[in-house]
Amino acid sequence: MQQSTSHTGFADLSDSDVHRLRSDTPGVANRIHFNNAGAALMPKPVVGGMIEYLQREAEIGGYEASAESISRLELVYDSVARLVGSEREEIALAENATLAWQRAFYSLRFGPGDRILTTSAEFAANYVAFLQVARRTGARVEIIPDDANHVLDPEALERMIDAHVRLIAITWVPTNGGLVNPAEAVGRIARAHGIPYLLDACQAVGQMPIDVSALRCDMLTATGRKFLRGPRGTGFLYIRHDFLKDVEPAMIDLFGAPWVGPQGYELRSDARRFETWEANYATRLGLGIAVDYALSVGIDKIERRCRLLAEELRTLLTAVPGLSIHDLGERRASIVSFTLGNAGAREVMRRLATEQINVSVSPPTSTPLDATWRKLPDIVRASPHYYNTIEEVHTLASAVCRIAA
Amino acid sequence: MQQSTSHTGFADLSDSDVHRLRSDTPGVANRIHFNNAGAALMPKPVVGGMIEYLQREAEIGGYEASAESISRLELVYDSVARLVGSEREEIALAENATLAWQRAFYSLRFGPGDRILTTSAEFAANYVAFLQVARRTGARVEIIPDDANHVLDPEALERMIDAHVRLIAITWVPTNGGLVNPAEAVGRIARAHGIPYLLDACQAVGQMPIDVSALRCDMLTATGRKFLRGPRGTGFLYIRHDFLKDVEPAMIDLFGAPWVGPQGYELRSDARRFETWEANYATRLGLGIAVDYALSVGIDKIERRCRLLAEELRTLLTAVPGLSIHDLGERRASIVSFTLGNAGAREVMRRLATEQINVSVSPPTSTPLDATWRKLPDIVRASPHYYNTIEEVHTLASAVCRIAA
Repeated sequence: MQQSTSHTGFADLSDSDVHRLRSDTPGVANRIHFNNAGAALMPKPVVGGMIEYLQREAEIGGYEASAESISRLELVYDSVARLVGSEREEIALAENATLAWQRAFYSLRFGPGDRILTTSAEFAANYVAFLQVARRTGARVEIIPDDANHVLDPEALERMIDAHVRLIAITWVPTNGGLVNPAEAVGRIARAHGIPYLLDACQAVGQMPIDVSALRCDMLTATGRKFLRGPRGTGFLYIRHDFLKDVEPAMIDLFGAPWVGPQGYELRSDARRFETWEANYATRLGLGIAVDYALSVGIDKIERRCRLLAEELRTLLTAVPGLSIHDLGERRASIVSFTLGNAGAREVMRRLATEQINVSVSPPTSTPLDATWRKLPDIVRASPHYYNTIEEVHTLASAVCRIAA
Repeated sequence: MQQSTSHTGFADLSDSDVHRLRSDTPGVANRIHFNNAGAALMPKPVVGGMIEYLQREAEIGGYEASAESISRLELVYDSVARLVGSEREEIALAENATLAWQRAFYSLRFGPGDRILTTSAEFAANYVAFLQVARRTGARVEIIPDDANHVLDPEALERMIDAHVRLIAITWVPTNGGLVNPAEAVGRIARAHGIPYLLDACQAVGQMPIDVSALRCDMLTATGRKFLRGPRGTGFLYIRHDFLKDVEPAMIDLFGAPWVGPQGYELRSDARRFETWEANYATRLGLGIAVDYALSVGIDKIERRCRLLAEELRTLLTAVPGLSIHDLGERRASIVSFTLGNAGAREVMRRLATEQINVSVSPPTSTPLDATWRKLPDIVRASPHYYNTIEEVHTLASAVCRIAA
């Protein structure tokens, strides 16, 4: 939805656009924030909208406030649907992306010998869930080989397909390393063979365009707090309408499965069969505002600026003595990962924090297979967003340079 | 923990106490709030604490704010443990009580012929979950008979016990009807026979003392938003330490089950194996503040005042022509349920709302068995809390009287 002609189309964000967007972001006055892959700085409308809603709850009561705001709350589904190119009935909101992903994954049934195909850089939270289900059911977890650039290789995936493959579940943009897996190519293979396809889009959402039709995924999960700039404790699940029909949530309550008689319940016909009755409405509203905000800035513009800043950072860091960049792939996301020869990642993070620069540390346990194979230690993760400036990128690089010296 | 001698001990809340507590409650200026069994009015410290935390997230970043507040966030576990008389390691926080309950219930394993015993007034959300597991596993769901007062009959429960009973799961205070089930008597039977005991304490918490040792429950779940006066979207699970050891959550992530090697994960040793890594920390803090607030007011005092106001309301409503009170049991909670002969429950709620009086409607589907057996229609639910006044109770009764006329 084009909310303002100045913020749509294919032009890049101008300096004055960035200036305006920064003035809408209280945190940039206090911090140089390169932890957007952790949790981005919320813009004023997001945090203001939540605060206003909480105050209203205190003023008139929690149920009364949600009843009064029901129209706005319902529009959150439309906003998320617009963001990913789906119908609103295909969206369920969740308390975080892990819960959204768990609700999708654990609703699938597996048996002995069933194969679950995933990537080398899969997020650990997903991976332990695969292992649990494998233990319980006798299913097998297998890793799709990477190509020479350490990117998931669709041709290798194609060769793995047989009648026992019950699920392809991958992380689109892994939690570190800048990698962007070929989610569309995987989707073409999954759809061609009628294999369920679950895509973890946590680090993609808000940073790059998402179109579930082009991705051909059956289920997609994402968080609100990262590049989308929404509140912590928010996430959503997209589930394709035709796929939903045969899927019963692993756990139900009276919202997703209303009671219809002494021995029975009936699942809701929309994706909200994966929700529970109770929710924190302030955070839901915050998520909706964040989605609208991202759409009004323009996802294409956001993606180009993120790439620009991330590549600038990589270029500058390459010149730092003793620094190793651990990023993979050709098309790279706005997540820059590195280590220094003379200081551990947590020490780097701590010293940058003394200069009001926020980065995060990605431990090997967050991408266990990849970290084991590449023998990665804790790595520093710097993740620029569109509201960062070239000057901030240079400040970060200079600070890292001083630590390396 | 006694925080102030003036608010502990066995005295009742004085008029000046109530006056002070009301001045701490913004909502009482706008509404006469009798929807505390839905969501109570938050006191200033709860909503203020959340707002302050959200602003801090916007100022310095979401991860950075939680790192800075880690000590306060950890203290929430101590507060909840103090509230229910457990160790902090026995507490898991949850995004709502349904999720807490689901995590407990769905972690248990059932097989064909296993018996799940529950109550006639069980909350529908729990009941549909029983039905789902019964369908999947061949377990049976059976209702523990009530006594002549429509209260769960412990002697009848004792007679039902055999080697096939795998779970006793009951709602302590049902969502409507004022009933208080004999949770301690049930606990004695469950413990004596070594049967897992899951207690839903959603409507009890914040309204009456909870002592998990006296209750002898293995798992207890509760919400923050009702009589505890905490934020929406909060809940917790107590799970007894010795019981926890043999329980694996139905779903896991890297927080509850860290990855420890290519083929393995290890469950956390404390109750937080039932949590996910990501959380909304503002609401968690709000929950902790609400618990501390309730403890400082004094749960014994709260209980006595709630009973006093609820009984006064029942007495006044008894005099209203054409009004039927649908409450059950001898010892009754602060949930008063009624219908009028000449106006449906939703109409009563709507008309009371025009006088700024908040009540809620409990549909038959929220307690399906009880509602079917008692042929209950939609019923009005008025639930006083300690910050309500006798004058407000009279105002409500007068307004109902006018509607009935």
